Amino acid sequence: YVDLVEIKDAVQNGEEIDRSRLHSVLRELFMHRFRSLSRVHVDDTGVVLLQGGTVKHMYSTDTEHLFRQEPYFHYLFGVDEPGCYGAHDIRTCQAFLFVPRPSPDQEVWMGPVRNLTYYLQKYGVDEVHYVDEMATVLKQMAPPALHMLHGRDSDSGRGMPLAHFHGISDFQLERSGLFVALTEMRVFKLDMEVEIMRYCARVAASAHIRVLQAVRPGMYEYQLESLFLHDIYSEGGCRFSPYTPIFGSGPNSAVLHYGHSGAPHDRRIADGDLVLADAGAEYYRYGSDLTVTFPANGRFSPRQRVVYEAVLDARRAVLAAMRPEVCWTDLHLVAEERILAALTRAGLLVGDPAEQVAARLGALFMPHGLGHFLGKQTHDVGGYVAGRFRERPTQPGLDRLRTARILEPHMVLTVEPGCYFIPALLEPALEGGPLHRFLVPEEIRCYMGMGGVRLEDDVLVTNEGCEVLASLPRAVEEVEAVMAGADWMVV
Amino acid sequence: YVDLVEIKDAVQNGEEIDRSRLHSVLRELFMHRFRSLSRVHVDDTGVVLLQGGTVKHMYSTDTEHLFRQEPYFHYLFGVDEPGCYGAHDIRTCQAFLFVPRPSPDQEVWMGPVRNLTYYLQKYGVDEVHYVDEMATVLKQMAPPALHMLHGRDSDSGRGMPLAHFHGISDFQLERSGLFVALTEMRVFKLDMEVEIMRYCARVAASAHIRVLQAVRPGMYEYQLESLFLHDIYSEGGCRFSPYTPIFGSGPNSAVLHYGHSGAPHDRRIADGDLVLADAGAEYYRYGSDLTVTFPANGRFSPRQRVVYEAVLDARRAVLAAMRPEVCWTDLHLVAEERILAALTRAGLLVGDPAEQVAARLGALFMPHGLGHFLGKQTHDVGGYVAGRFRERPTQPGLDRLRTARILEPHMVLTVEPGCYFIPALLEPALEGGPLHRFLVPEEIRCYMGMGGVRLEDDVLVTNEGCEVLASLPRAVEEVEAVMAGADWMVV
Ligand SMILES: [Mn+2]
Ligand SMILES: [Mn+2]
Repeated sequence: YVDLVEIKDAVQNGEEIDRSRLHSVLRELFMHRFRSLSRVHVDDTGVVLLQGGTVKHMYSTDTEHLFRQEPYFHYLFGVDEPGCYGAHDIRTCQAFLFVPRPSPDQEVWMGPVRNLTYYLQKYGVDEVHYVDEMATVLKQMAPPALHMLHGRDSDSGRGMPLAHFHGISDFQLERSGLFVALTEMRVFKLDMEVEIMRYCARVAASAHIRVLQAVRPGMYEYQLESLFLHDIYSEGGCRFSPYTPIFGSGPNSAVLHYGHSGAPHDRRIADGDLVLADAGAEYYRYGSDLTVTFPANGRFSPRQRVVYEAVLDARRAVLAAMRPEVCWTDLHLVAEERILAALTRAGLLVGDPAEQVAARLGALFMPHGLGHFLGKQTHDVGGYVAGRFRERPTQPGLDRLRTARILEPHMVLTVEPGCYFIPALLEPALEGGPLHRFLVPEEIRCYMGMGGVRLEDDVLVTNEGCEVLASLPRAVEEVEAVMAGADWMVV
Repeated sequence: YVDLVEIKDAVQNGEEIDRSRLHSVLRELFMHRFRSLSRVHVDDTGVVLLQGGTVKHMYSTDTEHLFRQEPYFHYLFGVDEPGCYGAHDIRTCQAFLFVPRPSPDQEVWMGPVRNLTYYLQKYGVDEVHYVDEMATVLKQMAPPALHMLHGRDSDSGRGMPLAHFHGISDFQLERSGLFVALTEMRVFKLDMEVEIMRYCARVAASAHIRVLQAVRPGMYEYQLESLFLHDIYSEGGCRFSPYTPIFGSGPNSAVLHYGHSGAPHDRRIADGDLVLADAGAEYYRYGSDLTVTFPANGRFSPRQRVVYEAVLDARRAVLAAMRPEVCWTDLHLVAEERILAALTRAGLLVGDPAEQVAARLGALFMPHGLGHFLGKQTHDVGGYVAGRFRERPTQPGLDRLRTARILEPHMVLTVEPGCYFIPALLEPALEGGPLHRFLVPEEIRCYMGMGGVRLEDDVLVTNEGCEVLASLPRAVEEVEAVMAGADWMVV
């Protein structure tokens, strides 16, 4: 696999990223977009104001959580430090950064105090001031309004808190427009952003290869998580995984959000287990999100191979069909159809796959959506934007889709078909109900303890089709060869 | 060093910990303590109510932070899962646990739904109910009052939010008493708690040894952090470090809170650097906190040795004097005196060490306190309890002490003397001021780029003296031998 040590020297602390260029291009694009969207005279638009994240503590203790910047603020300004604000004058395209004034003993505890010029050069903005000067500086800009982020994340359903600073009551606030415009812009990645995301995907793919070559029956699941995290950090400089990794063995591979505090990767991996590893790497606040599924002992059993190849066929079909103007919902149905067809061929189901799909049988084996936008958030923004694109579908399974949009170039999405044997879903269906007529209970019961298979790639929509950002061993023979020690070049 | 793999099988998910015994002993002790403290008739005391932590999300996204339980709640109930409450009837010593009612699709996303008997057996309480039944169950207990945690952490200065649940307005709430009693009890560790803390210390010590043997000039600081975290997790089953680790090389070794998001371990370690590594391991919500300082190339330079042995002598002197009835403030002064005496012998200072200490010269080289209570928080509770023990001193340096208490058996504290060359402190003093008369500027300037040295141990106060919970190589010869590949047995 790719020797990340070679490029590691260049990637520390985002040094290889031309922050100034990336964010000034983003801000300029945004200015044009916002002007055309707002449909008012340029002089009446004013100033965009974003508040960065602040340091959080563990309960009432003085233990700080390691800081990660708020995604919208990082998108326009690229700032690492907590407690900052950014303003962007969309009349002049000038960018202002406001940083906290250092406390007297900060140098002793936190390291050299940076002057304002340091931030000006690092972040390529036009002016830097202290946060306590913000009201004064903003007043001098005399904006007709401050445009504020105000909206709701369509994956979490949670609203963003409104930015606040001392003196804000002296300004006219405009809550409409900014959230939708900035959210929609984040859906389409610049080439520079894609390059960073490609790096995130390669680092994670290399770590997955490392895990594939290290796993042995008898290890604990958490040892795989530990090795993965070590590899992305030590080899790739990625201090965070974008989400809590999932390393589920045996029946745990069918628990979609396995790995949380109530199910903390504490199972000992057994010979004959399937292992599902869903883990990514975060760099410059962008993330990757990759899943591999493999047999702990290095050889797929015949039944494991049936399920694996059903998902693999779905993956191939989706990637072949993924291009601009295709609707994401239709690709989800393609994946369902391929999985159900394979299970039918293998004798677990009866009936016509098209009819099975129409009856929503797919949701019994793949109860999650085909994938999601990917970027500065794992479930990136823009999946549903109120009143602008297709609404969330309501049929079983499709209601889990994180977007139902028509694909366009420069979107990045995960493609993650899966097939799981989840007792909580299957047992009731084996007893009766509208889907019972498609099931072959005695066959399905033979697969029940196996868990599940998911194959997840990070995919860019191109003008002609799509591009997988990092290549992993996917064919049964490839996975088995890598697990036996064969080299694998992540490209 | 100790082969943690051998004991790893027993420590997964706290299986080796007899939760039921540990927490029922803690609750019973607490009941007696609270009864005697509250000075009212037992029947009038009522029920202690604690609220556990809840899952937090990253900003408005659906990305969950990996859950860590609130320390007071974990102390009395040992519960891993979020969203729970605990009640302890101090009239009958009966313990009640309230868990969230599972949502219909929880089994698909989070794994097998546990019934109430599972929690009853796992946590050894007397009754388990759902949170939505809590008001009803508590009313049946007819408590004269619900005792609520209400107080302020003396390290963070931050108050605890009051527990809340639906129906709380039907109860008489008593905010006084509980916080002080439970805080004070947490200061004194049971043998069972010490055993867990010894494990935390050994796991961290073994990981420090691994780092000592892996470090080479040319590596990045973050690669040491990555290796440490991998070792405590993969070998010790410790998913968390209790605080953000510090791996500072060269001048960064003098930045006391190095490693945060604004200074993220991104320096390349140079030949000739000192490296200061301050990192611990968390297990069963207890933590360790250990610091080693070593030369990146494996050999101390003469000047590095001067500073290192000054701190080493302070460590020896403190551990020799640490016993019940000694005041922590006096041990801090012992450390200062030894460090200043060594710097005087080496020609960096002039004057009488006792006079230097009285003039508060110590704070120029060690601007932090000698150590802190350790337990379920890194800076554990009980350092200052309003109106009950010695107040926080006000002299320079001593005002940083996290406690000024008289030592008693079963306390666990860190002992962490340090000596740093911090330009922000030393440069002004070299220019003039009351401490200038003690300084030999031309000598001190030779040490200025070196950074600093800290040696930190986790120490139990015993009846006769004290016990270091995990042994690290400390003598110059020991450190150099281990770095050259010699075995080290952590005991
Ligand atoms: Mn995903
Ligand atoms: Mn400490």
